[in-house]
Amino acid sequence: MSADYTSGAAWMNAKVIPISDAKISVFDWGLTRSDITYDVVHVWDGAFFRLDDYLDRFMASMGKLRMDVGMERAEIRAALIDMVATSGLTSAYVSMVASRGTPIVAGTRDPRACNNHFYAWAVPFVWVIPQDVAKRGAHISLAEDARRIPINSVDPTVKNYHWGDMTAALFQALDAGYDTTVLLDHDGCVTEGPGFNIFAVVDGTVVTPKSGMLEGITRKTVMEICAELGIPCEARDIPKDVFLSADEVFTATTAGGPVAVTRVNERILGNDATGAITERIIKTYWDWHTRTDLNLKVTYK
Amino acid sequence: MSADYTSGAAWMNAKVIPISDAKISVFDWGLTRSDITYDVVHVWDGAFFRLDDYLDRFMASMGKLRMDVGMERAEIRAALIDMVATSGLTSAYVSMVASRGTPIVAGTRDPRACNNHFYAWAVPFVWVIPQDVAKRGAHISLAEDARRIPINSVDPTVKNYHWGDMTAALFQALDAGYDTTVLLDHDGCVTEGPGFNIFAVVDGTVVTPKSGMLEGITRKTVMEICAELGIPCEARDIPKDVFLSADEVFTATTAGGPVAVTRVNERILGNDATGAITERIIKTYWDWHTRTDLNLKVTYK
Repeated sequence: MSADYTSGAAWMNAKVIPISDAKISVFDWGLTRSDITYDVVHVWDGAFFRLDDYLDRFMASMGKLRMDVGMERAEIRAALIDMVATSGLTSAYVSMVASRGTPIVAGTRDPRACNNHFYAWAVPFVWVIPQDVAKRGAHISLAEDARRIPINSVDPTVKNYHWGDMTAALFQALDAGYDTTVLLDHDGCVTEGPGFNIFAVVDGTVVTPKSGMLEGITRKTVMEICAELGIPCEARDIPKDVFLSADEVFTATTAGGPVAVTRVNERILGNDATGAITERIIKTYWDWHTRTDLNLKVTYK
Repeated sequence: MSADYTSGAAWMNAKVIPISDAKISVFDWGLTRSDITYDVVHVWDGAFFRLDDYLDRFMASMGKLRMDVGMERAEIRAALIDMVATSGLTSAYVSMVASRGTPIVAGTRDPRACNNHFYAWAVPFVWVIPQDVAKRGAHISLAEDARRIPINSVDPTVKNYHWGDMTAALFQALDAGYDTTVLLDHDGCVTEGPGFNIFAVVDGTVVTPKSGMLEGITRKTVMEICAELGIPCEARDIPKDVFLSADEVFTATTAGGPVAVTRVNERILGNDATGAITERIIKTYWDWHTRTDLNLKVTYK
């Protein structure tokens, strides 16, 4: 009987396995210290989108955390492709992970002496904002209590699982009837939301925070799209009041691309419909999924 | 063949299993969002120390995170005792964990709709500061770059795995030859270190931070010991310069009790030996491990 990958597949210890078998030890420091980094690339219509950009960031994250998983970039790349090819998934959310692992010598508490390890997993495509919500436009809150973990505590450019602030804010937003939420930093500027970067259109310019958040690949793609379409675009600090008076707002994530926001707190933007600039960016983003220079076709097994 | 518990045991899905078999899914939100809380109680000389205090905190942490693991306090307590009794471990580090789990409906991103679950594990007693280091006195640094995650980002009174700030500081401390490190908050006051609370003796008073850190059970025990011994003790803000000029310093953790610190940064305290007040507290702490009101004897199987 061949393995069932309809729910997803994982790559662990050089083998592709069904995702239900993919587990890590309860005392792996990737769990008990959240000493772990990851990246997520998507597969759309049988092709990886910008795989090398995601790999660049993942390799950089491992370097910043001083992890050595004993695999070259090319081996990691090959493992991801092999996993997706074996899984049969043509639209997928593909997660690559590097964990601190467990100490080489039992009892030590030294993070320099651990068995760092790599694994990956792929599941059917995930929408951070469900498609029906994306169509009508997301309703988001600006988190009132939880502030984004500051950069001198945990570096947000190293993609990480430190989501305590996000989860607290998400509970509050969902309870109040919003679809999701965006967190402010300790200076009152907008940062990011649970799983996405945030953009606003202010006086005809597309703006996005310049620090305090993940430097998303979809964020980068949006900036490139703006350049191509001749729309001014800038990364800069966005104070709360500037954000709240923006003409358009949208999110950007690997798990769904750019998505329109039509309501922020009590405010309804642009007649409760997707803004004109947002719409052009979303269309171009999905159009770019046929560009051969950005997409890598998978040869399924 | 009976199971081998010499490396440890775990309690999962109502069964006691060898710790090497204790694993969780790579997409459990306890891992991928660090949406998890835990507590650690120790077993010493065949008895749990202050088990009910640890259970009080664990139940409170689950409540603050809005988790319902489907077990009453008494069931959790019984699971921990059963696990230790089965393991045969007479001195152990016993971890109880509550995780958000995975979404009940595939694809949802709503933390309110997840299968929260409980598990536990026990390993031979762990010393956060190794015994030989504890004997000569620990050498610690005040972390220069990484600041403790602030309380309005992640609540430190809910014991958690958000250790990115701790790990960054620990790398820097270990590289510089220190045994461990203590982190400052964003106002420059002392908070805690990786796995322990911190105390200082200032003008004859034992002081410890009043906020920004875990409210440790060993910290509470030290305060009770001070009351018993007639030593003034107070929880208050401790600015960096006050800490650096303290007469004595010591750490406090479940995984090793109070431990003397003899060097902080470049400074040598009290002739490089354990201070007189610290020594009395350490002695009393271990003496209290025979008090029947604080200790629960395990009936091993």
